[in-house]
Amino acid sequence: MRIGMVLEYDGTGYFGWQVQPGRPTLQGSLEKALATIVGEPVRVEAAGRTDAGVHARGQVAAFTTERSVELRSLQRGLNALCGRDIVVRRLEPVADDFDPRRHARSRTYEYRICNSAWPSPFTQRYVWHVHRPLDVASMQRASAVLVGEHDFSSFQAADCDADNPVRRVDESRLDVLGDELTYRITATAFLRHMVRNIVGTLLLVGEGKIDSAGFAAVFAGRDRRRAGRTAPAHGLYLMSVSYPQGNLR
Amino acid sequence: MRIGMVLEYDGTGYFGWQVQPGRPTLQGSLEKALATIVGEPVRVEAAGRTDAGVHARGQVAAFTTERSVELRSLQRGLNALCGRDIVVRRLEPVADDFDPRRHARSRTYEYRICNSAWPSPFTQRYVWHVHRPLDVASMQRASAVLVGEHDFSSFQAADCDADNPVRRVDESRLDVLGDELTYRITATAFLRHMVRNIVGTLLLVGEGKIDSAGFAAVFAGRDRRRAGRTAPAHGLYLMSVSYPQGNLR
Repeated sequence: MRIGMVLEYDGTGYFGWQVQPGRPTLQGSLEKALATIVGEPVRVEAAGRTDAGVHARGQVAAFTTERSVELRSLQRGLNALCGRDIVVRRLEPVADDFDPRRHARSRTYEYRICNSAWPSPFTQRYVWHVHRPLDVASMQRASAVLVGEHDFSSFQAADCDADNPVRRVDESRLDVLGDELTYRITATAFLRHMVRNIVGTLLLVGEGKIDSAGFAAVFAGRDRRRAGRTAPAHGLYLMSVSYPQGNLR
Repeated sequence: MRIGMVLEYDGTGYFGWQVQPGRPTLQGSLEKALATIVGEPVRVEAAGRTDAGVHARGQVAAFTTERSVELRSLQRGLNALCGRDIVVRRLEPVADDFDPRRHARSRTYEYRICNSAWPSPFTQRYVWHVHRPLDVASMQRASAVLVGEHDFSSFQAADCDADNPVRRVDESRLDVLGDELTYRITATAFLRHMVRNIVGTLLLVGEGKIDSAGFAAVFAGRDRRRAGRTAPAHGLYLMSVSYPQGNLR
């Protein structure tokens, strides 16, 4: 039986999704909890291998087990064993060949910034605090140029091993509510550090170091060295993953 | 020189406001940081002595120092030394006789509940998670009966040493946004555990164990034993303190 999951997690205490010996990871914690419950080793695969410190509100993962399991009690067991930083929101049977990563049609990420004189003690782990005043309107103009099918080499991490840097972006927008900025991007797939490099470069626009035309030039230049710094991991959230055969809800 | 402060803090890691030997407290952390900066012992007094685990978004405090201090650099120094759980939002000169507790005209508290099947990993320290579905409309009706000048003995902790249990409540309301419930109460002053005991009793209404008339009867009965349990500290926030001579902003 193959089972799909929708996961929410606070990535603060984890070295990212993927199992690493001797370090707490999300995959490791889930696999350990599942093995305890079903009594056999279980391999869990995710739609996106989030980096260390990155959060998720709608990560999708799947695993296969031959044991007969009752989904509701499995969900309760996983939520009890995984600790308070990981919540299994949904658990449902999926097709035997369901591959959460390769079958995904698109992913949506959000990056949260708090633009205020002082940080808030309640969001220190969950937003990037920027105290310099930002020109939000320019950032909004710049963010819009990413929509469409483009070469994203400018925002690709040096150690990214993707063969092809072309991605199709369906949504790229910056919303503002008080001093909270939320950058939202939906794309077929993402290069390593792509969202954080986009946000770091949008910040150059917000600070007036480049304008939105300059942002477009950096983007078109396909040269990572001209882009901004990589924004910190703790502002980034994998929000949802979409599938052609319908989403897990 | 007497200086007033507006403070925001995540109370999770503290044994409440008041200094206790050998334990981390908010007063203790602030007094230690201030002493380091001004080079002499400083006594900090607050409007409300919040309990262990209770948060603040607008606590007001004050201290006196004979040293000449530049407020902006004092604020930066305090925010650097106090750690990320405490943020000094405002710092301004106040009258020499300003007493943040006795001069306060009213205080506003909020209590946050998340009413959903599963908790969120992002708010586990900041809201009370209740998974049983709640009858919010009944809770709203019940909360309204507290407005006015009343005897609050039903919601007074056993160890509360107030001489007079009568308080004037100016606002008592429950707002709902999705699965988040926020109970907001403004009163001249509060008895020990008063807000948390009100919320615990409102929960009995939400669960259908008593109706809003039953809540009014518990309130009128002036008997703590008939009220609900004390809601946990981590959902409670001291939001603001109001003064007749104008608020610190």
